[in-house]
Amino acid sequence: MASTLAHLVNHQVRLAARPSGLPVAGDWQFTEEPVAEPAEGGVLVKTLALSLDPAMRGWMNEGKSYIAPVGIGEVMRAGGVGVVVASKAPGFAAGDHVSGTLGVQEYCLVPAEQLRRSGLAKIDLRLGTVTQWLNVLGMPGMTGYFGLMDVGQPKAGETVVISGAAGAVGQTVGQIAKLRGCRVVGIAGGQAKCDWVVQELGFDACIDYKGGSVKDGLKQHCPNGIDIYFDNVGGEILDTVLTRINRKARIIICGAISQYNNTTPVQGPKNYLSLLVNRARMEGIVVFDYADRYHLAIAEMAGHLQAGRMKSKEDVVTGGVAAFPGTLGKLFTGENFGKLVLQVAEA
Amino acid sequence: MASTLAHLVNHQVRLAARPSGLPVAGDWQFTEEPVAEPAEGGVLVKTLALSLDPAMRGWMNEGKSYIAPVGIGEVMRAGGVGVVVASKAPGFAAGDHVSGTLGVQEYCLVPAEQLRRSGLAKIDLRLGTVTQWLNVLGMPGMTGYFGLMDVGQPKAGETVVISGAAGAVGQTVGQIAKLRGCRVVGIAGGQAKCDWVVQELGFDACIDYKGGSVKDGLKQHCPNGIDIYFDNVGGEILDTVLTRINRKARIIICGAISQYNNTTPVQGPKNYLSLLVNRARMEGIVVFDYADRYHLAIAEMAGHLQAGRMKSKEDVVTGGVAAFPGTLGKLFTGENFGKLVLQVAEA
Repeated sequence: MASTLAHLVNHQVRLAARPSGLPVAGDWQFTEEPVAEPAEGGVLVKTLALSLDPAMRGWMNEGKSYIAPVGIGEVMRAGGVGVVVASKAPGFAAGDHVSGTLGVQEYCLVPAEQLRRSGLAKIDLRLGTVTQWLNVLGMPGMTGYFGLMDVGQPKAGETVVISGAAGAVGQTVGQIAKLRGCRVVGIAGGQAKCDWVVQELGFDACIDYKGGSVKDGLKQHCPNGIDIYFDNVGGEILDTVLTRINRKARIIICGAISQYNNTTPVQGPKNYLSLLVNRARMEGIVVFDYADRYHLAIAEMAGHLQAGRMKSKEDVVTGGVAAFPGTLGKLFTGENFGKLVLQVAEA
Repeated sequence: MASTLAHLVNHQVRLAARPSGLPVAGDWQFTEEPVAEPAEGGVLVKTLALSLDPAMRGWMNEGKSYIAPVGIGEVMRAGGVGVVVASKAPGFAAGDHVSGTLGVQEYCLVPAEQLRRSGLAKIDLRLGTVTQWLNVLGMPGMTGYFGLMDVGQPKAGETVVISGAAGAVGQTVGQIAKLRGCRVVGIAGGQAKCDWVVQELGFDACIDYKGGSVKDGLKQHCPNGIDIYFDNVGGEILDTVLTRINRKARIIICGAISQYNNTTPVQGPKNYLSLLVNRARMEGIVVFDYADRYHLAIAEMAGHLQAGRMKSKEDVVTGGVAAFPGTLGKLFTGENFGKLVLQVAEA
């Protein structure tokens, strides 16, 4: 086995500097290393595809958050799907497909003591494709599912509004809410995305925030007000939604992509007193808290996918890890259409 | 009876104009009316004392809120305690003490069809004094009690921070939290108020926001972070607290007195993404939702008062309804010390 690996080179993308605003080329460093055998208890994984997420922008900042920042000079953190090349860990064998925190690199050597922290877990490609395992069956899907179900607690007939509706989390939230009997209204950028979530995913309506007034759209499409708002964007859209929430509404704070590259302070929701008037609740979620129940959500959603009750759209970019910096930028301009995935190797 | 009432004059304060910023003299109109007998099913109440509350500022604004605005030309809305002068309603007799929405006037004629809406209810002065019935046993007490217990859900050992700590709501929240075994840290304006909540009410500490840094005070007095924040003020203090909350923290939005007289937009909490990082919750409360359980809170707190486990401080201003406009202003400068009460007649 050692001879098989000896000729392999691991290309990596490391964080070179903490960005101010949008990340630029100089914030990244490209390195290469020889690929090494795993030691006792470790696993060597070949990366097939990486998940590109808005949360990555937060990991690049210094300071306390729900997870430690990526250190300067470290391989950029990323979730991904790969295939085990060599294993000295119980439960993993060469050829197994896995998901976990692989990092922006072609090979990920996970030592025994980091197995747990990497979240490395075997996945079953009969339940979904590699890219679906990064989307509906992966972290975005888990985020959407548990955010909606646990914090939102949707009831049939309620109105659910979702920003970033065509994004990775948004598509899960909207489809699960429809399956629960809710009225679902998305907010997305551009007519193509709006058409897709309505025509393909079955949302009741979708408001193009780039092409018109969100306020007017909510007025038109939420005649009975808003019971649940799943927020991925923050900023003006959050403020507008707050003017139309119902009594006892639930607002799930999943992200605030409109604010992540700010060089000025975050814009706080100036209409937050609507929470008081409406006895409403705004609550943050972090997906890792639900790790012990991921398998339940995966089982349900894999069933929906296979039965055609749910769809999953990924925007797959090729070019390997070298394409990472340029591809990440698409998230913040809204250029991606569906869950943004970087393909690193053929499955 | 008609002859007894015929010579009585009812002095009233009416809303003449919607204020911009702090209410001014021209926003009020003084009127007088003869006092009339109640018709069948109605009650005539003589006002003894009125509750002056920050929420009154909101009632003076146009627009949808949790309660309709006071109309121009209408008697200003106010909760109060009074004594029944004449009754043609079952359950009320002359001499009964009552609380309810009496308005800023010396006599309140409540017709049958408004009995329910006025919340008129008999009170027992053996459980508390007239002013205590406007404080710990009244709306502020109910607000503090149910906001803390239902939304906050305090557990022994948790740290509870309260802004407006010496105010009507704050005193209840802090004392109930202490009785539940929490560490209680107040925020109030001025050393005298801070000393009082610590020395008289038994708070563990109190931060004088006028005399020093709230940030430093929280760092010093909340070594284990903040589990519950009961917010009466909004603005900068809310933002500062958000930087120090614990995982799964609960923030009760009861009011935002720092923002009520703004002529610029409300300042939204720019650190609201701390809710995400900490999986925390911000929730608004309106006391009326708990009306069917007021009696439980009253029973508990009257017991605490009588056993000396709880104290109640009112800032009683004399001068009758004519003194209303000037007295209301004290709330917004923080001049009042304890629950602000306007005495209208001797008990």
